[in-house]
Amino acid sequence: MKGTGFFADSTPLSVAEIIAITGAEAQDGADLSRILTDVAPVDLAAPDDLTFVADSKFASQLPSSKAGAVLTTARFAGHAPAGVVVLQVRKPYEAFVAVARKLYPSSLRPTSVFGTAGIAPGAIVHPSAKLGAGVTVDPGAVIGPRAEIGAGTLIGANAVIGPHVRIGNDCAIGPCCTVIHSDIGDRVIIHTGSQIGQDGFGYVSGASGHVKVPQVGMVVIHSDVEIGSGTRVDRGGIRDTVIGEGTKIDNLCQIGHNCVIGRHCIIVSQSGLSGSVTLEDFVVLGGRVAAIPHVTIGKGAKLAARASVMNDVPPGAVWGGFPAHSKRQWIKEIIAVQRLAEGKPVTGPADAATDAASPAAAAD
Amino acid sequence: MKGTGFFADSTPLSVAEIIAITGAEAQDGADLSRILTDVAPVDLAAPDDLTFVADSKFASQLPSSKAGAVLTTARFAGHAPAGVVVLQVRKPYEAFVAVARKLYPSSLRPTSVFGTAGIAPGAIVHPSAKLGAGVTVDPGAVIGPRAEIGAGTLIGANAVIGPHVRIGNDCAIGPCCTVIHSDIGDRVIIHTGSQIGQDGFGYVSGASGHVKVPQVGMVVIHSDVEIGSGTRVDRGGIRDTVIGEGTKIDNLCQIGHNCVIGRHCIIVSQSGLSGSVTLEDFVVLGGRVAAIPHVTIGKGAKLAARASVMNDVPPGAVWGGFPAHSKRQWIKEIIAVQRLAEGKPVTGPADAATDAASPAAAAD
Amino acid sequence: MKGTGFFADSTPLSVAEIIAITGAEAQDGADLSRILTDVAPVDLAAPDDLTFVADSKFASQLPSSKAGAVLTTARFAGHAPAGVVVLQVRKPYEAFVAVARKLYPSSLRPTSVFGTAGIAPGAIVHPSAKLGAGVTVDPGAVIGPRAEIGAGTLIGANAVIGPHVRIGNDCAIGPCCTVIHSDIGDRVIIHTGSQIGQDGFGYVSGASGHVKVPQVGMVVIHSDVEIGSGTRVDRGGIRDTVIGEGTKIDNLCQIGHNCVIGRHCIIVSQSGLSGSVTLEDFVVLGGRVAAIPHVTIGKGAKLAARASVMNDVPPGAVWGGFPAHSKRQWIKEIIAVQRLAEGKPVTGPADAATDAASPAAAAD
Repeated sequence: MKGTGFFADSTPLSVAEIIAITGAEAQDGADLSRILTDVAPVDLAAPDDLTFVADSKFASQLPSSKAGAVLTTARFAGHAPAGVVVLQVRKPYEAFVAVARKLYPSSLRPTSVFGTAGIAPGAIVHPSAKLGAGVTVDPGAVIGPRAEIGAGTLIGANAVIGPHVRIGNDCAIGPCCTVIHSDIGDRVIIHTGSQIGQDGFGYVSGASGHVKVPQVGMVVIHSDVEIGSGTRVDRGGIRDTVIGEGTKIDNLCQIGHNCVIGRHCIIVSQSGLSGSVTLEDFVVLGGRVAAIPHVTIGKGAKLAARASVMNDVPPGAVWGGFPAHSKRQWIKEIIAVQRLAEGKPVTGPADAATDAASPAAAAD
Repeated sequence: MKGTGFFADSTPLSVAEIIAITGAEAQDGADLSRILTDVAPVDLAAPDDLTFVADSKFASQLPSSKAGAVLTTARFAGHAPAGVVVLQVRKPYEAFVAVARKLYPSSLRPTSVFGTAGIAPGAIVHPSAKLGAGVTVDPGAVIGPRAEIGAGTLIGANAVIGPHVRIGNDCAIGPCCTVIHSDIGDRVIIHTGSQIGQDGFGYVSGASGHVKVPQVGMVVIHSDVEIGSGTRVDRGGIRDTVIGEGTKIDNLCQIGHNCVIGRHCIIVSQSGLSGSVTLEDFVVLGGRVAAIPHVTIGKGAKLAARASVMNDVPPGAVWGGFPAHSKRQWIKEIIAVQRLAEGKPVTGPADAATDAASPAAAAD
Repeated sequence: MKGTGFFADSTPLSVAEIIAITGAEAQDGADLSRILTDVAPVDLAAPDDLTFVADSKFASQLPSSKAGAVLTTARFAGHAPAGVVVLQVRKPYEAFVAVARKLYPSSLRPTSVFGTAGIAPGAIVHPSAKLGAGVTVDPGAVIGPRAEIGAGTLIGANAVIGPHVRIGNDCAIGPCCTVIHSDIGDRVIIHTGSQIGQDGFGYVSGASGHVKVPQVGMVVIHSDVEIGSGTRVDRGGIRDTVIGEGTKIDNLCQIGHNCVIGRHCIIVSQSGLSGSVTLEDFVVLGGRVAAIPHVTIGKGAKLAARASVMNDVPPGAVWGGFPAHSKRQWIKEIIAVQRLAEGKPVTGPADAATDAASPAAAAD
């Protein structure tokens, strides 16, 4: 995005370099030495920009594009105007992402908001904390006693790292995050204002009120996890709360105590797991999914947005609704209710043209 | 609220001044020089307080009110006891708000928690940041390199402003907020602990995990926007995330990357927009509304609380439900299901007296 | 949890001491002098650990447990292997919690992340603030003018306490919290990154936009309240927002302006109360419950997860659904819709074995 100046260290690339990254095929006579300095959507791209067209929605904008080069498929290659270098690939978006990662290496992990290395002015690091080589501590960050911060890790401005916390190498803990009672692997990213390791919600209730249950577990976050902004991960009550390698969690999610989340899961914004929920590997939770305590969501299962999981979900299942069950059955129910209210026959074949609102996109 | 002392600079007003502000009509013989120092609800008001009565719910409390003066309609004016100055207006609540804004000018925008002007002790401002006249930076705030803060703006305690961010004049950025990768207009208010400009949630997923998509857009917030506490606005992936002039967003909302929100929209608490959602001007989203990617909500449309928007919404429409569709149809469905379960005829006329629960208030 | 070192001050207990705490009955010949240093779940417990078995789910793991001692019922006592001291009680979990509270006294209230007492380096306390005996202010915390902090209270790292706020004795305000316009009792715990006392969401809307309504009430939090991480409590518009004694609120909840919450309520994660909602004493809100303005939820009522309260709820009622109504009726509706879509008779007796998904757990 030209001129914003937020990624000052972008790395211009030639068409030849882009071809090397993507395996794209250039049209005959393309200027392989042309330099692209930025990326932009097809409608906004300027002559120094690389863009992409992956589907027909954006293909209609290609003939009038001012881009320097476009990554696109054979199907849309002919739509590009003269002057745009056409780079033909099978998966334009994936190729575009690969180039963008090279153009903007600093976008892959949050960097210091103060532009400093080492311990910035105004950071407070306990003398007993151990900081690896190349650790950056931004202004106002607080690091408690006996904490261990691995080499190359960034602790953001006004973040708080509690006593005895261990954080691995090349992590980025965002501004205004708090991390307590936690053990974190390598290359973990936690975005702004997320809180990790505070007490889970546990009480023994009686006629005179609620007695707090000690929360003596911790949070274990494995390597290559990324956690959005404003998400909460409570530490375990008696077991640990665990987030597996490579899992990505969006903003404003709630992960309750004792949850065990597998590897490479995706959890979309505003989802909430109550206590002791298990997610096996490669589970996908759409936006605002919820789960009651002690359920297990099997490997590779996908839950549609707003699903409420109240029973174990089999591996590979695609579920939605409240309570969550087969997405196919759930959509039948939505359509049945729509027809019921309209006085139509309920159990006929689905008729997308007449149904008031199609829920089919809910799990996409 | 007498005696709380949180708004020490309140400005007492005479009845005559209140009349000037509101256009109210005083009863004959009213003491126009009487001074009101505070506002209070009708049941709690004391002789120094201005109150209001706008509907029959509160009118029943008027005869026993100890208020100094009441703004009310012709309908309820006769209910006031002797000793209460009756100020008759067509819209008592709106008149009351106009007076309260004069009585409590400092309530209209958050002020320094430290009572200081200029750069407070413990604030960390990068030497290359540019601060306009009358900027206040509270203790612990961090302002990064090349940031520009306009005249009269407050940066709250322990807030973090990233490099190259531009903030206009007379804004208030609340304590513990973070603002990165953003360009913000004038008179924008962001309340406590909100996070603006962090990475959107984007990955290219494959069998071995999820590859991060660079998020190289920014957040553009136009003038007179107000954002509640704990709300997240992610920066754009390749376009910008935009919030239009005068839009008001409540607490704990999620605004995904590339969303474009129009002017003067209202977004109530815990709502969530996934990526690339468009809201045209004057859209109203009730509490906890959600929208899937790439939908457009037309000008002036209203979405009932908990609506899930999965299709484009026409301008002016009033929709609710999951998936969101006509509110009228949605309410018919709720009632149909209630009747179905009770073994009643489903399609008869609605019978408010017998329906277990009326959903009619959902979009109010 | 052995070896984590997060609760360095744990207090080892002998079997005799555990019996004194719980009233448990030891098997004949038990070694009453045996020392337990930690707690652990039955499958993970080591010889120094106390564990418990309260239900058949975990009883199956008891025969192979390596625990030092187990609290369990008469029913499962015989399952323990030789070498595990069996302590028989009627309510094993409650007994276990009582012991854990003695073993880990420092787990009952968050402690300094910096391990200091008094005002830490980097804390900024206004000279007019009044701090009681034994107050701890962690690094980076900011305390505004005329604030009063009671004896023994902890203000966490990078927390912000606004002007004129009063906080009682023995409270813990977590790192990165903000507390403004508030009056807080004794022994209140507010976890990481929660925000208390900011403006409620109020506007007078017209054709040209939205005019801000002054929010001049405050937040009153009574003693022994505990508030999770990332929860927002807005101050009152004209009344106060009140949270009653002993109430416990989970993470990421929204409490709107003018809400009055009674004593000993439980509010589970991601719930949201809009403005002017009343909860009487001992109300339980499951996860993600919502309520529209001006409704009252009666004493001891329970709302199932995701209930949307749109009418007053009678005392003691158990409600769920959207709009919330009798849980019994709501479950009938869910089953009726499932059957409708499957072409089964709708109003027959519930058949748990054939219903696709049972919602029965929703209010547990």
